[in-house]
Order: sequence, then C-alpha cells, then structure tokens
Amino acid sequence: MAVNLSPPDPARLAAIDGVELGFADAGIRKRGGRDLMLIRLAPGSRVAGVFTQNSFAAAPVQVCRSRLAARRPIRALLTNAGNANCGTGEAGLRAAERTCEAVARVLGCAPDEVLPFSTGVILEPLPVERIEAALPRCLATLGGANWAAAAAAIMTTDTVPKAASRAAQIDGRRVNVTGIAKGVGMLQPNMATMLAYLATDAAIGQSALEALARETADASFNRVTVDGDTSTNDSFVLVATARAGNREIANTADPGYGALRRAAIEVARELAQAIARDGEGATKFITIRVTGAAAEAEAVRVAKSIAHSPLVKTAFFASDPNLGRLLMAIGNAGIDDLDPAQVSLWLGDVQVIERGGRAAAYREEDGARAMRPAEIEVRVALGRGGAETTVWTCDFSYDYVKINAEYRT
Amino acid sequence: MAVNLSPPDPARLAAIDGVELGFADAGIRKRGGRDLMLIRLAPGSRVAGVFTQNSFAAAPVQVCRSRLAARRPIRALLTNAGNANCGTGEAGLRAAERTCEAVARVLGCAPDEVLPFSTGVILEPLPVERIEAALPRCLATLGGANWAAAAAAIMTTDTVPKAASRAAQIDGRRVNVTGIAKGVGMLQPNMATMLAYLATDAAIGQSALEALARETADASFNRVTVDGDTSTNDSFVLVATARAGNREIANTADPGYGALRRAAIEVARELAQAIARDGEGATKFITIRVTGAAAEAEAVRVAKSIAHSPLVKTAFFASDPNLGRLLMAIGNAGIDDLDPAQVSLWLGDVQVIERGGRAAAYREEDGARAMRPAEIEVRVALGRGGAETTVWTCDFSYDYVKINAEYRT
Repeated sequence: MAVNLSPPDPARLAAIDGVELGFADAGIRKRGGRDLMLIRLAPGSRVAGVFTQNSFAAAPVQVCRSRLAARRPIRALLTNAGNANCGTGEAGLRAAERTCEAVARVLGCAPDEVLPFSTGVILEPLPVERIEAALPRCLATLGGANWAAAAAAIMTTDTVPKAASRAAQIDGRRVNVTGIAKGVGMLQPNMATMLAYLATDAAIGQSALEALARETADASFNRVTVDGDTSTNDSFVLVATARAGNREIANTADPGYGALRRAAIEVARELAQAIARDGEGATKFITIRVTGAAAEAEAVRVAKSIAHSPLVKTAFFASDPNLGRLLMAIGNAGIDDLDPAQVSLWLGDVQVIERGGRAAAYREEDGARAMRPAEIEVRVALGRGGAETTVWTCDFSYDYVKINAEYRT
Repeated sequence: MAVNLSPPDPARLAAIDGVELGFADAGIRKRGGRDLMLIRLAPGSRVAGVFTQNSFAAAPVQVCRSRLAARRPIRALLTNAGNANCGTGEAGLRAAERTCEAVARVLGCAPDEVLPFSTGVILEPLPVERIEAALPRCLATLGGANWAAAAAAIMTTDTVPKAASRAAQIDGRRVNVTGIAKGVGMLQPNMATMLAYLATDAAIGQSALEALARETADASFNRVTVDGDTSTNDSFVLVATARAGNREIANTADPGYGALRRAAIEVARELAQAIARDGEGATKFITIRVTGAAAEAEAVRVAKSIAHSPLVKTAFFASDPNLGRLLMAIGNAGIDDLDPAQVSLWLGDVQVIERGGRAAAYREEDGARAMRPAEIEVRVALGRGGAETTVWTCDFSYDYVKINAEYRT
C-alpha cells in the first residue's frame, strides 16, 4: 500500500563505525517475525534524544529521559515491537529496567548504560522473559551492516522498512549519517516519530549533539502526520561515535555543525517522508507547503489543520476535487485575524483559490487532473508575512479504518 | 445507519404560534428532493443567533451577522441545502442578498428583514434563479405543523430528519419550544451545529434571548462532534414569537428564564445527540463524560481529544477493547501538569484504568463486553477538581470514508 516507497537497499546504507545492530524473534508481536532489536555502541559514543509530549509517556520513555538527563555514557539501545509498555505503572518501569539489566549482563556494561524503547499495544504487561530469552540470539547477529534488517525488526503495522544514509565532508573527512525509523499510525509526532534512530561517526560535543537532535526532529519528524494522534512512545535518538577522525564539533557555530546538520536533516526527512508514504492505508503522499505566514508556528497550524482534516483526507483518497474542504480546513486553523481575501491555494500547478474564493481561471477538470497523481503538493499562500513551512501527510482510505479496526485481533 | 434514531413523529412536535414553515424542491441538491425551506415569523418575533468561528464564514453567515447586529426585525428565514455559498466572495454575498430580496417580494417585507442560510458544497456559485423559481411553491406550503417536513428539507447527507419539542410553565402559561437541525459531518460545531433552528412562543426580551441562544448552544451543539471539522456555515438561530401570553422575561435572573432555558436546552440536546447518532457512517453513539477537571474548558479538551482521535473511533467501530488508545488520547489533550497517576477511566460499568494504569480487576472479556453495545458511555476522572462536561460523538467506520469519498460524485 505504501506510496512510491521501496525497501531500503542494504548496499546503499553506510555502516557507522562504532555501531553494531542485532535482531531476533522474541515472540512479542502477534503476527510473528523479528521484533527485538539491539544496538551496541562503541565506548566514547555520545547520545541525545527527544521524546513524546504525551502526558502518558511510556515506561521506556521515562527511563530514557532520566538516563540521558544523568549524562551517563550509553552503550546500548534495546527496542521491542508489539508491546508499548505504556500505562503499566511501577511494574512497567521495573519491566523496562529488567530488560536493561539483561542487556547489561550479556554486554558487560552497567544497566544504566542501556536505553530501552518499546512500540506496540498500550496497557499490556511487557513479556520480559521472552525478551531475556531472545537476547543471546540478538547478540549473535550483531554487525555493522545490519541497518536494513534492524529497520524491519522494529516495524509494527509498517509495510516497508525505513532507512536512509547521507555523507558530509568535515575537516576533509567523510562523515556518515545513517538512520532508521518506524511508524505509520498514532502518528503526529510531537518531538519525534514513534521510533527513529540516527547514528553518525562524526565527533561532536554533547551540547551540540543535543541541539542537533532538536533541530533535526523539528525539520523532519515534527513535520509529518498520519492521523493527528501523538503516540505515548515517540522517541528519536541521535548517536555520534566520534570515529570519523574530524576535529570535534564544539558548538552550533562550528562550520562542521552546518555540514553535519544538512546530512542529518536529509536522512531524517527521507525517513519522515517514508512514514507518510507508508501511513496506514495510504494511497497518496501529500506535501503541504504554507507560505506567507506571520510566523512559522502559524504556518504549521494551517498545514496541520489541512493535514488532519478527515474530510480533506477522504477527498484526496477519492481524487475528488471537493476543494472547498481545503478552505474549511484553513479557516479552522484558529488564526483569529486571518483575512480570507488574502488567501490563495494551488494544487500542483492549478490555482484553485484566489482572494479567498474560487480562482477565476479554475476549471473542475483541472482540479480533477491535479487530484489524480499518487503524489500531490498543496500550496497555500496566506499573504501575512515571510514565514513558511512544509508538512507531509497521506490520504485517509478504507484501509486506515480496516487496519485500525483489526489491529490486535 | 443512524444509531437508535427514528424520524420525528409530526404529532409530537408542538406548533409554535407565530411560526410557519414551507418547503420546496428547488433542484439544488444533486440527489434531488426538497432542498429549500422557508420560515415565516409573525410581527413582533425576536431572533438571536450564534455562528461558526471558521475564518471562511460563508456569505449567508456574514449577511446574518450584520442583520442581527443591526437589530432589524426579522420576518423570515430562508435555507437551502446542496450549496454552501461559501468561498464565493462578493458574488456570493450578492447572491445571498438576492435570495432575501426574492423572499421580501413574495412576503411583502424588507430584504433586510430576511436571514439567509445555506448548507452543502463549498466553492460553488449559488443557483439563485432556481431558488427564486421555487419560492412560490415554498410559500404555498407554509403552515405551522410542518416542522418535520422542514427538518427533512434541510438535510444533506443526513439519513434521518432531526426535530424535537418540549414545554415549560411560565407565569402559569404553557410555553412551547420546538427545534430542527441538520448535520452529520464537517461537524465539530464551534458555536452551533451546521444548521439548527429553535422557536418558542414565549415572550422574552432581546438581550435575554441572546443570552439564551449562547447558553443553549454551549450546553448542546458545542458538545457534539463527528469528525472535528468545523463547518464554514454553522448557524444556530433561536426565535421567540411572544404569543404564549407570559409576562415578558426581562433578563436571565427572571424565574421564567430558568424554565425556558431548561426546555430550550432539552430540545437542543436531543437535536445535538441526534446529530451524533446520525454521524456519517455511525454505528455507535458514544457519550464521553469527563469529571474531576480543574475547569470546564479542561474537561472539554480531554473529552474532545478522545472524541476526535481516529484510533479511538475506529476501535469503537470494531468493538475492540484496544483501550490504550483512550489513554493516548487523554495524554494528548495538552494539559501540561496532568498527573497520570490520578487518572481513572470506565467504559460503562467496567473500570479500565486506575491510577493511570490498567485496573487490577480489569479483564479483557469485560472490556469486550463493554465495547459491544450500540450506545457506550466513557467516563474519565481526572482527579484535579470539581469541573466536568459531557460530549457526544460517534464511531469511525468504513462508511465515513465511503460517504466522504463519494459525496458530490
């Protein structure tokens, strides 16, 4: 079902010196297959993360937050699919810690040097024993070339694994960035997608790495939405192993920071767009660009009002140029002093709205033609200022309902 | 498809002395049938209205607002279904005015004593000539007993007409309130439902009538949501003909105000609930009650976060007790200092969540049983204070997608 999205070619994913990935079938996910993924980091690696803003942050998110806040060195990331370990109270926190203790035993590190991640059904106890039992198999597969297999091991209702690589030159050294992500529903990340991991071999200081994690999430995962629902488990982690041989990037003003930022954002955007392309039931990939806003936050509000409207999304599914629904969605963005007469809207190269009403030259057949492709750009000009943004989403089909009515059962 | 909703029995709808209703087939709505409705008000009637907060308020909404602000006496309300006259610019305003002029000619009143209302497709020019041509037929049917037929004439994708009546005693006089409404999608009224008309024969002063319109909308139409999309045409009008013989209700402290308020809110709630029962594709009617909030606005935020979540709504459709989705939705309400450990949740009489996690006594089979009925109450206790609210909604089915993918075509 995914829109113009192919599985990643393992040969095109750069290994990151200092990062090894392993996977196993732990029997957690009901439909079977690999559902456990372990990342081992070389000593000296730095880690930064951003996490969900949902009030019911899952147990593993709480553990990650406290370990990153304590600035402990991180040696491993453990992820299970099929169970979110959320809404599980004290027992859930203890379960997340027990999985870290198990990793620490097999890797020979301290339990608080392990970060846990979970994705799947909420309100179910985590089957810790199954994870413990599968860890040795995970360990046996550890290798630097396993990014594509790791991306597959963290999928839930994803239909295609999501992975990407980019390179940058810093101090005359080639620096690599490789990332994987999962997520197709319960998805309006409010910090990051459900789960995304990026790693680079660049050397970068801890505070610059943390800034890079935030900037990267804002420019990618925070600009994608499937259904407007923000998961309890959203986590995005950025790892830097310092193996590339560049002089350590000290802060965000360092020229190397800009080069690394570009590569990291490109990887993250490819993953974020892959999430929308693989959105539950998606048949169309929609790019919504809002220009002429008084501030970027305002542009985001308008773009997300369009991206979340069930009526707009079902019209895209039907390829029906029922474009008044776009007008309705812009009007619902909550911009108090919006002047409708300044608003224009294009669908691809077809101007649909000018001065707040139907464009004089607009013909229904042009609208029908513009709605037909599998990839559509909606551009809105608000006429209020110079700020803009771009958001990616997908349409809303029978299969979204089918997938979500049948998940679990 | 509507959930436990029957067409109104005309014999149970009280006529309102001073109000006559007529209808006709003007050929505006593509699927045919009656699509024009005229209400004639006796001299001395008072009118108050509340309208959509969407920035792209439709032309008729703009005309209504300016006429009500000018405090002109209102003698007629004209409504067409099938075309929203929205996003139509100056030409749309002129079209709305032309329909009022046509009504003024046939009724012998001034054009600015007529209020226009439209509902249907956005961004299409209003076919004024068809409305003008159908008006004489509308006029020929005018009568006080036509509430049920009028409710049918304003439907778009509604499957059941919506009408209700209540009576109150004021000064020893029987006072009647009768109302009709339409709306099943693009529906999270942010002032009123798409279109709703209530009339009473009570005598009530203008400012008290305006307060009553706001209070009634807040306690009814502003508490129902189908898909979270707020229409450009939402209008709620409250008419008082002063024919019941009560001493005029002077202000909101008048004992008669309380009696009339109760009757008006009961009528409006029955209509609002009918809208959720007839929500596009609805198979379940869901009542969401949030208690223990620090303020009513906070309770509304939590209730609507649940009511708008596509994941929650598809789980209801599937009768799948995937109740972690309810937790996710509460966590997304944006209450910064929400303490998950204080949150409890019941589905009917089954406690699902206690202290922010799965209730100790909860069994999956109890959840499955609680999800099965066509009418379900979700109760959330936030443990933060004494404020509460109730919101009504419906589930999200294949047919919502089908209806909205096929509307127009």
